[in-house]
Amino acid sequence: MAVPKVHGSVFSTATNRVVACLHEKGIAFEFSPVDMRSGAHKKEPFLSLNPFGQVPAFEEGDLKLFESRAITKYIAHEYQESGTELIYKEPKKMAILAVWMEVEAHQFDPASSALAWELVFKPMFGMTTDAATVEQNEAKLSKVLDVYEARLSESKYLAGDCFTLADLHHLPNINCLMGTPVKKLFESRPHVNAWCSDILSRPAWSKVLETQKQS
Amino acid sequence: MAVPKVHGSVFSTATNRVVACLHEKGIAFEFSPVDMRSGAHKKEPFLSLNPFGQVPAFEEGDLKLFESRAITKYIAHEYQESGTELIYKEPKKMAILAVWMEVEAHQFDPASSALAWELVFKPMFGMTTDAATVEQNEAKLSKVLDVYEARLSESKYLAGDCFTLADLHHLPNINCLMGTPVKKLFESRPHVNAWCSDILSRPAWSKVLETQKQS
Repeated sequence: MAVPKVHGSVFSTATNRVVACLHEKGIAFEFSPVDMRSGAHKKEPFLSLNPFGQVPAFEEGDLKLFESRAITKYIAHEYQESGTELIYKEPKKMAILAVWMEVEAHQFDPASSALAWELVFKPMFGMTTDAATVEQNEAKLSKVLDVYEARLSESKYLAGDCFTLADLHHLPNINCLMGTPVKKLFESRPHVNAWCSDILSRPAWSKVLETQKQS
Repeated sequence: MAVPKVHGSVFSTATNRVVACLHEKGIAFEFSPVDMRSGAHKKEPFLSLNPFGQVPAFEEGDLKLFESRAITKYIAHEYQESGTELIYKEPKKMAILAVWMEVEAHQFDPASSALAWELVFKPMFGMTTDAATVEQNEAKLSKVLDVYEARLSESKYLAGDCFTLADLHHLPNINCLMGTPVKKLFESRPHVNAWCSDILSRPAWSKVLETQKQS
């Protein structure tokens, strides 16, 4: 089988979602950096990999994929026997996992990505944080985390007893927000706090951060 | 097997996504209307079905699901042998399908849902449409549809030669926008236009609209 290749940036949350998944599965891969500062993701040859001009993109032989969550699903299914089992085989458990993956994408991600943009990336690029946007998205994120607190008081991980893609997909944004005042929204909810500590301390995630530090 | 039950509203795009899927699969189901005008979706007993207070929710025996796209995935996998085959068995084809499902969710849906809200639902509720939001989202949707035009010039449907969940997930928002000036963005792109006409004319979608008219 061809060695998988990830095109992306070590500072991109979506790229890190895919890289964390590859580390969990223990799969050797090639990393091809995309120079986002020069806008390489908005030009050819990158647009042939992702017509929306967003990182990451993934190649494995003649298979070309984009959208981080589609890539992780492919990796989790294709390499089911390697490393951490990130999905379930039983259809009803898999359906519950699909629910919590959609929750991450449609409830958690919009608020947490907006906060990461305002509080982490805008300052990094010398732009000014918009206080009203921060306040509005903190309120949205609080409501989401209230639901997570209730869920995680019944179930160790979001989709059940095992760490799955539903948890893994949260890692890049949670990690970003842990360096901001939004951290308090996670820490003030005991089950959410324990879950965050647990998933952030996974060796696969440490490898992602290590690569980021070296860049 | 227990008869599936859909809790939702015939005017909800997310509910209609699930109902269209059940009709494509030819599965008998029970419809339980949620009175959204009285806010029933934000109260118990509905919150026990979906803690985020959004329709639809789905029950099949002891299995309870929410998030429309998680529900359609469950139906398509669980009832794979019934009605229209909405997914692929081959892993690489399935990965391409996952990419286009993510594209609908992360590229098409934000712009098209914002436009449906401004141009269809706000007027329905006696609220005022915001022209700046419409303009901004028309620009976003145009860029998405440029990518669709290129894709659909190579491939009859978004994920390949067959109608799949990736196409089906678009139906409720496209149908909404066809009654608005945004229609021109679809009609001015020949392959997008042909694709829209094709998927909107499917008998399963006609059944969704018939039920809506009777309400």
